[in-house]
Amino acid sequence: MVNVAILGFGTVGSGVAEVIHKNGQHISERVSNQIALKYILDVRDFPDSIFADKVIHDFSIIENDPTIGVVVETIGGAKIALEYTRRALAAGKSVVTSNKELVATHGYELMQLAKEKNVSYLFEASVGGGIPILKPIRTCLAANELSQITGILNGTTNYILTRMIRAGLSFEDALKEAQANGYAERNPAADIEGHDACRKICILASLAFGRQISPDQVPTEGITSITLADVDYARSAGMKIKLLGRAIRRDSDGKVCAYVAPHLVQDESPLANVEGVFNAISVVGDAIGDVMFYGQGAGKLPTASAVVGDVMDAAKHMCYLKNNCWEAGGPDVVYSADEVPSRWYVRLSGAEAVEQARSLGSQNGESAWLTDAVLTPPQVQQLLAGREIKALYRVLE
Amino acid sequence: MVNVAILGFGTVGSGVAEVIHKNGQHISERVSNQIALKYILDVRDFPDSIFADKVIHDFSIIENDPTIGVVVETIGGAKIALEYTRRALAAGKSVVTSNKELVATHGYELMQLAKEKNVSYLFEASVGGGIPILKPIRTCLAANELSQITGILNGTTNYILTRMIRAGLSFEDALKEAQANGYAERNPAADIEGHDACRKICILASLAFGRQISPDQVPTEGITSITLADVDYARSAGMKIKLLGRAIRRDSDGKVCAYVAPHLVQDESPLANVEGVFNAISVVGDAIGDVMFYGQGAGKLPTASAVVGDVMDAAKHMCYLKNNCWEAGGPDVVYSADEVPSRWYVRLSGAEAVEQARSLGSQNGESAWLTDAVLTPPQVQQLLAGREIKALYRVLE
Repeated sequence: MVNVAILGFGTVGSGVAEVIHKNGQHISERVSNQIALKYILDVRDFPDSIFADKVIHDFSIIENDPTIGVVVETIGGAKIALEYTRRALAAGKSVVTSNKELVATHGYELMQLAKEKNVSYLFEASVGGGIPILKPIRTCLAANELSQITGILNGTTNYILTRMIRAGLSFEDALKEAQANGYAERNPAADIEGHDACRKICILASLAFGRQISPDQVPTEGITSITLADVDYARSAGMKIKLLGRAIRRDSDGKVCAYVAPHLVQDESPLANVEGVFNAISVVGDAIGDVMFYGQGAGKLPTASAVVGDVMDAAKHMCYLKNNCWEAGGPDVVYSADEVPSRWYVRLSGAEAVEQARSLGSQNGESAWLTDAVLTPPQVQQLLAGREIKALYRVLE
Repeated sequence: MVNVAILGFGTVGSGVAEVIHKNGQHISERVSNQIALKYILDVRDFPDSIFADKVIHDFSIIENDPTIGVVVETIGGAKIALEYTRRALAAGKSVVTSNKELVATHGYELMQLAKEKNVSYLFEASVGGGIPILKPIRTCLAANELSQITGILNGTTNYILTRMIRAGLSFEDALKEAQANGYAERNPAADIEGHDACRKICILASLAFGRQISPDQVPTEGITSITLADVDYARSAGMKIKLLGRAIRRDSDGKVCAYVAPHLVQDESPLANVEGVFNAISVVGDAIGDVMFYGQGAGKLPTASAVVGDVMDAAKHMCYLKNNCWEAGGPDVVYSADEVPSRWYVRLSGAEAVEQARSLGSQNGESAWLTDAVLTPPQVQQLLAGREIKALYRVLE
């Protein structure tokens, strides 16, 4: 028997309770051990829930209960969640989380603590919701030297861009629609400004390349400046605008460049065809070539699916994440996106020609261009010196 | 130190040697143990290979060498490969394979033998080449009750269909091109008649639903009868023809229907956009919803990537496949595809209208129709009674 405590009975936490309840027999058979939900910690009560009798308000009950083997942290944020995670690990309990902010900022510290205590700190649900991605990278692809990760990592922004592309909605209208459908928060900043995608590419890059990469090392640009004109110009070039998180390992010194920014993606690319709230993550390795993982990147039950998968691993005391996933970070881990060349899409005031670039047309006193040359950011800035830049996005090759 | 022996130095076997050689340090670090290639068994010698000194011709040397921990079987087929796998497992060595025929036909027996001997029998590379699929199903998605698997499981046929769709080549010309490019064998029957996809859906269905499903329980139709007329009619309906392997679990009794056949797939479906030699596998579970895995389904290094990933698991003596993956099969496992309804695409002699169907046009004395009604195979046969059926394919919903 493995007893489980859930911290935070919000969307994901209640999904975890539901999956354990609904598929309990099947889950227990799979791990050859009964998995039982014992406590739900929340500040609120839930008198109408079938789990009402499990709700408690005092974390120390969980901390001091030696029958609790696995703690599920679905509080979010990096304050109380950090404190409880530290205390649970210190008490010798494995911790499973969907909390990308905490893993992206404190992952190394918490894995070290788990290692000391010989327990697991697992976070498959922190990237791509229910999509299996972290464990496949760590195990199935372990024979590869990985070189690149490129992902549509945020469903809210992908939904907004899809509606701009497919229905011709403005950014503002698409955002409102996303909010009305429950795909965007009332305060959408973390999504539309790219911070959520930033945390996820940090976790992916740290896991794939072996050292902690922190959000403050990852230049992050959201989708708030993308207009319907950009969408149309991209279409005329056979491309779609997507918000991508990328991490690129430089062969010469093993340093990693990670960043989040809108990109123009060729229509034929599998990433261009990822629509609505779906996520997709492409991984390139020296043996595997290009492999892609696709699915619902958020949502109650998909995320709970990944959390409960980790609970089962922790319950079986599986070895795969008992070792540290990655080493400590530092300024020497990364190199600057200023050193990463690409072709560029640019929208400018005025219609005057741009050298080494082809025109995508002009309207309303603006013109759009696609550079033929492959340029670093400083080089493209130099090329455009003296012009008023309205939009500047990389083309994904 | 874990010593490895490779059986069969063909495409995949030599890829495995190459990956272990090239990424050896990285691989050994990952498993905290040195992985060393000791023997390569083949009937031939390879005097010009850097591995020439490892080549032997007598399996009993491997069988009787107590320092060999993992045997990689990349012989193929179910004759000598079966004998050597049995003997290696019986000698207490873990076996890793890319041999889909052997796993599809003798998987249960070999897993039982591995269990008795407390070793692993691992076969991630047998489905989808290097794409991580079996282990993610078994672990990351373990909290789900799975209901459906649908895959483009054979790169050769997908290449041929892609060339028919994109370049307007006939089946015969597309096959010749595939052979010229090394994507199809000189004798292409196993691919184009669907047998390769059949073995793979057997393995996926057995793993996902828990009991052995054998190729003789899986009705299998290839792509040899698909014409450019079918491709064009499909296009006019906003669809593409794809060869799919499917496995569907019936909720009422847990029985499984697995089959391989051409399907019409809506252009917007992620599966419709899987082109050339790529494979993709969609999995549906009660919590996760729809998740898809995409990548190169064959080829030397991608397949070797998956094999070496399994070698690393076996070397770490990981627990995940130590338990049986699935139970014994039997006639009670499956239900008939005759009970699975769908909409249908049909091409007929003559232009006489078909009830409950819309016309896709007519030419050369034939007409094509898409049924509005959702019908089982006997029902659609009844609907078309008296007509000469030239092509009859399901529409994937």
